[in-house]
Amino acid sequence: MKPPREGEVRLGYDPALDPQAGLHFVGVIRSDWAEGTAPKNLRLSREQGGGNARIEMKPEFAPALAGLKAGDWVMLLYWTGEARRDLLVQHPRHAEEPRGTFALRSPARPNPVALGCVRIEGIEGTTLRIDATDAFDGTPVVDIKPWIATVDAPAT
Amino acid sequence: MKPPREGEVRLGYDPALDPQAGLHFVGVIRSDWAEGTAPKNLRLSREQGGGNARIEMKPEFAPALAGLKAGDWVMLLYWTGEARRDLLVQHPRHAEEPRGTFALRSPARPNPVALGCVRIEGIEGTTLRIDATDAFDGTPVVDIKPWIATVDAPAT
Repeated sequence: MKPPREGEVRLGYDPALDPQAGLHFVGVIRSDWAEGTAPKNLRLSREQGGGNARIEMKPEFAPALAGLKAGDWVMLLYWTGEARRDLLVQHPRHAEEPRGTFALRSPARPNPVALGCVRIEGIEGTTLRIDATDAFDGTPVVDIKPWIATVDAPAT
Repeated sequence: MKPPREGEVRLGYDPALDPQAGLHFVGVIRSDWAEGTAPKNLRLSREQGGGNARIEMKPEFAPALAGLKAGDWVMLLYWTGEARRDLLVQHPRHAEEPRGTFALRSPARPNPVALGCVRIEGIEGTTLRIDATDAFDGTPVVDIKPWIATVDAPAT
């Protein structure tokens, strides 16, 4: 196990070893990004062309796509489970000082469910082309939800 | 098991019985809402005063809150695991016709991780008062993330 970085605080246990609910992946993200070299966030991915991003759904979930179409913005939930799950305070390279995990978008978190708003560019069978992703090729998909301003953005 | 509603399409298995990753809850939502009577979404909750909404974190996650403060908008992820997980096409009362689960925000979905953007009103110890929730009292919390426009809203 790697030694803690300066300023890191760790939980006394690994949340992965005490599951209280189970996820069943519904598909996989395809992209030109590899683990370790993927852009750090969606904005940077878009600046780099989006990464040829697609969502490949498991075939049995095809009926659940009914109603989605090109041009729709959706919330994509995906599993960044390669990262460690016991970091409470961490010090990302971009930050001046350590911060709590819940004040960061770091993939290293107790439940590594990442989240991003992406646009559907086209649907062919059970593959959805999307405008961009920061996920590396093969990242499991947890959920897709239609983006709704009154739910997913600050209330005005 | 209840018979399908008109227009419903079901998966041939229960995703809950084939877990591929585990969630470990980090806290619980407190509210005045009860199961079955909670408002259907965040907008309706706000119209009803918000429901006296709070997030009670497990004490061991206290350090992970460092950096969050009153006035911050965060993405709250929570587990609506009471709902069935095998509906591919469903017909909510508000909709004119059946739609695929991934084109709906229904709590009944393969991975019932609900999502909403809420404002932190205050933090006392490991309790965060938030402006509103549509979750009933006792709903498990999966994650808290700072809301970031370039990630959580349509790109402009």
